[in-house]
Amino acid sequence: MMKTAVFLAERFSEYELSVALSVLKQANHPIVTIGLTTAPVTGESGLTCVPDVAIADIQPKDVDCLVLPGFDDFGHVVHEEELFDFTRAVSETGAALAAICSGPVVLAKAGLLEGRRYTVSLTKEQRELIGGFDDERYVDAPYVLEDKLLTAQGRYFIDFGVNLARLLDLPVDSRWYH
Amino acid sequence: MMKTAVFLAERFSEYELSVALSVLKQANHPIVTIGLTTAPVTGESGLTCVPDVAIADIQPKDVDCLVLPGFDDFGHVVHEEELFDFTRAVSETGAALAAICSGPVVLAKAGLLEGRRYTVSLTKEQRELIGGFDDERYVDAPYVLEDKLLTAQGRYFIDFGVNLARLLDLPVDSRWYH
Repeated sequence: MMKTAVFLAERFSEYELSVALSVLKQANHPIVTIGLTTAPVTGESGLTCVPDVAIADIQPKDVDCLVLPGFDDFGHVVHEEELFDFTRAVSETGAALAAICSGPVVLAKAGLLEGRRYTVSLTKEQRELIGGFDDERYVDAPYVLEDKLLTAQGRYFIDFGVNLARLLDLPVDSRWYH
Repeated sequence: MMKTAVFLAERFSEYELSVALSVLKQANHPIVTIGLTTAPVTGESGLTCVPDVAIADIQPKDVDCLVLPGFDDFGHVVHEEELFDFTRAVSETGAALAAICSGPVVLAKAGLLEGRRYTVSLTKEQRELIGGFDDERYVDAPYVLEDKLLTAQGRYFIDFGVNLARLLDLPVDSRWYH
């Protein structure tokens, strides 16, 4: 069965990811947490987590969606070409992509935002500095769900989780997250 | 400096805990994650985490608050006498207690709910079966904050985090969790 891959790296945002994880669990949808390696990583709030598998050891064709959390310091991911290659490979299989807060940095660096509407929790100056963000397609909204791409701003992490269910056509009881 | 101890065990609820962790980080308040051991535990949504320290190796006097998440199967904690002893020892130092969803089971088993108003995400039948829940003090409310005790129902995890800041007299910008 296809799995949703959830990317973990140093300083990832636990709360931005947590409702999305819970929604997948509600629907009994299988997940796999992935990391640059399987070494433990510590989230921005201090939770130390162990990725299930390294991205070098997972087949993009086995992934139905890649979930990218935000990072309080995206310097930890902005030069990770292997991650961008993996993200492109997942997208090329037709899988969905879901990114919150600064998570869309990975999509921008992978060249996957071209021609697609998106949101991100970064200023215009930050987006220009990083590159890969199509300014004309940026939307200042809590979230943008279009075709196979979900993006959301960090504080709308409940909307992100609930719309991840829509993206994957999964049932969800959003009252769990009042 | 005193730390807030955050208890992790098998099948703990990641999302119920996540905003509380973020609030503590916002305030730069030190935390330590604690476990029955330091072996990895997997949350109810599949995130594998490593507690920083085992409860046998932390001094109750160094803890200003003990945070207890919910569990989708509280059978993992309901017989852990060492955990109840630790929780009592922390409380006896004058530290605060904060528990969400089924987390108050630990407080009930430790005998710490006697004479105190609380809430919990369990039915009356479940509370009677477990024991230690003072039925006259149960409150059907999103959260109860009184003296040194915060309890909350699971879906009110944002209120739980924001009121944890009130409990510990920490600044918080609740707009992070729209």
